[in-house]
Amino acid sequence: MTAQRVLARADELSTHSAREDGIERAYLTPEQTRVNAIAAAWMREAGLRSWPDEAANVCGRRHIDDDDRPALLLGSHLDTVPGAGRYDGILGVLVAIEVADRLRDADLPFALEVVAFGDEEGTRFGTTLLGSRALAGGWKDAWLDLSDADGIALRDAATTFGLIPENIGNAARAPGSLVGYLECHIEQGPRLEDLDRALGVVTTIAAAERRVISYRGEARHSATPWELRRDALLGASEGIVAIERIARDRGSPATVGRIRVEPDAVNVIAGFAEFSLDLRDATAAGRDATWGHIRHELHRIAGDKGLDLEVTSTHVAPEAPSAPHLQAAIAAGIAATGDADPIELVSIAGHDAMAIADLTEIGMLFVRCAGGISHHADESVREDDVALAIDALEAAVLHLAAESG
Amino acid sequence: MTAQRVLARADELSTHSAREDGIERAYLTPEQTRVNAIAAAWMREAGLRSWPDEAANVCGRRHIDDDDRPALLLGSHLDTVPGAGRYDGILGVLVAIEVADRLRDADLPFALEVVAFGDEEGTRFGTTLLGSRALAGGWKDAWLDLSDADGIALRDAATTFGLIPENIGNAARAPGSLVGYLECHIEQGPRLEDLDRALGVVTTIAAAERRVISYRGEARHSATPWELRRDALLGASEGIVAIERIARDRGSPATVGRIRVEPDAVNVIAGFAEFSLDLRDATAAGRDATWGHIRHELHRIAGDKGLDLEVTSTHVAPEAPSAPHLQAAIAAGIAATGDADPIELVSIAGHDAMAIADLTEIGMLFVRCAGGISHHADESVREDDVALAIDALEAAVLHLAAESG
Repeated sequence: MTAQRVLARADELSTHSAREDGIERAYLTPEQTRVNAIAAAWMREAGLRSWPDEAANVCGRRHIDDDDRPALLLGSHLDTVPGAGRYDGILGVLVAIEVADRLRDADLPFALEVVAFGDEEGTRFGTTLLGSRALAGGWKDAWLDLSDADGIALRDAATTFGLIPENIGNAARAPGSLVGYLECHIEQGPRLEDLDRALGVVTTIAAAERRVISYRGEARHSATPWELRRDALLGASEGIVAIERIARDRGSPATVGRIRVEPDAVNVIAGFAEFSLDLRDATAAGRDATWGHIRHELHRIAGDKGLDLEVTSTHVAPEAPSAPHLQAAIAAGIAATGDADPIELVSIAGHDAMAIADLTEIGMLFVRCAGGISHHADESVREDDVALAIDALEAAVLHLAAESG
Repeated sequence: MTAQRVLARADELSTHSAREDGIERAYLTPEQTRVNAIAAAWMREAGLRSWPDEAANVCGRRHIDDDDRPALLLGSHLDTVPGAGRYDGILGVLVAIEVADRLRDADLPFALEVVAFGDEEGTRFGTTLLGSRALAGGWKDAWLDLSDADGIALRDAATTFGLIPENIGNAARAPGSLVGYLECHIEQGPRLEDLDRALGVVTTIAAAERRVISYRGEARHSATPWELRRDALLGASEGIVAIERIARDRGSPATVGRIRVEPDAVNVIAGFAEFSLDLRDATAAGRDATWGHIRHELHRIAGDKGLDLEVTSTHVAPEAPSAPHLQAAIAAGIAATGDADPIELVSIAGHDAMAIADLTEIGMLFVRCAGGISHHADESVREDDVALAIDALEAAVLHLAAESG
């Protein structure tokens, strides 16, 4: 029953989008206002007292937890990439609400809270995990000067949304106010499906770094002889091909998802090309070693083609290991659903848990998704898997309660 | 004195731009309205009767040519690429006005006309030479459905500009109404500078074709394993690298100046990538042979990467040879300035003359430009070269007059 409700709610949230032809829900947008209100209402139905925090995250705490005991926090995010599916982040919020609903009257040795983060993807302002970093105490006021593709500053977007920009940092929870954080999330990879398992335990979230890489050459007429050309798009293209070769050889997932050129005219050689790099690895050391090889090759291309290379790092995250006792609780939760020897997985994708790891210990439960597909309209989960996920997360909470009781 | 005036006028026209930080003047824009009015005023000062034609070209005919004798047409275009220089097209219009001014009372065996075309670059609607093709009788009403980057249809842009969309084709001049077309233009290449010559005779304009090439893969999360990826931007990058290698080997100038990807997010593999190809060659046969090699490689990449390839041709032009007697007139004009053995050049760049070649015979005079730089703010010509260009074009007209008189 509750799994059915989770899927229906995911369908409902998917209708709140910036575009008609797909799902796109960025931080501090009218779409977020709507889904935050809906999520707050669902939290209240589940027996939670709900409030929006200073960073546009939606929080909830059980009514019976009316003291200031440290809380176990369950949650994930409601923002999406452009052209997203229905479950990335959203499933974790909805499963957390279901677990809170089931445990609304349970006698636990800690308070129980749910959170729906407002920004994990970082699509709008280019910097990820803004919501979860604010809650974890990592908000930086310098981010108020970030601007979106339309030139709107985060400061102004926050004001329009109804936040007080200078107060966003006050979303920070006090050290010691949490006993841990558990996040349920779709796997966004094919391993659970390949191994015919519904659920898995995340051992660590991979280290990641995002960079903006640009080549500057010279915009000239397309009749310009080869030897006089300084073609920035040609340099970028060679760079993108080299990145795939190097990163694949070294087992560090790498993606170039954005590119733009100037002047972007059919009969003008591109004088400027800028592209993104999303580079990951099980460890920060591995990621940095791969970057060293990539950087060397990008410089070689710049030299060969008479281009100027610039690289800016926009996001760095070390690996974020799950706490052993929270891994054990998630494993016990999965075992309670009938899978006695749960699969352990490294999460290549980043998650809010990475940011929360700065404040408290983290644990993650992965749910199988069809074909490993994510960040796409075809993102899909099975209703029976969602039912198992709710059962497992509930059992994990009870396991922790028994352990600490 | 007149060369100085030409440079001052080029400076004045450069201030009419869609942007503050450079020159951008597309077809059927408010900027065009302003420069058309200015050019018409200059034509009137030069002793021409001036009128806007049905396609937003500005025309002028000597007052003394008040009969319907066939005319020798001098001209070029006033539209620009984004981030343009001051002389591409513009110089040819201004030099033509100076020559008409000098010859305002000359007794010629033909009428003398000047034209300032409204669209040569094709920047706004993706199809080039709209102005000159309309005058040459090649206008297609299907072009009314072309739309610009903001989704504005050419039909609506024309109405806003003050044209009657259905009447644009009436800009066509009658066959036999012209005795020929002479165009002065900056070289947009380095050969005249390398050879220390101010002016050159164009023997032929290269064949050209523009295509839009797209790869469709699958937009997926950047955590997707390599073997499940169908990365459209990686395919495009390999394609762009291959195009340079093949075209350079075969001596066919090729440029990829535009690219866009979807969904264009830092942590999503590009599911779609689209880029332009501008391919040229001294002959259409050579161009098509080079394209055959490129197409083969693009298909190979699509197969390797599980991508779908689509190619659309947006512009095709065969080579446009100059008429021998007009080449001789241009050469005689240059010789009259002191260069007895003028350099002959193939124009790799396309020009309005290509379109006019469908209506009458063409000839072109090239003027040295600094470093071969064009389609860039650094586009530059020397005042003494402009003076020689005016002298040479005037002498070429008089040579033709003497020849046919």
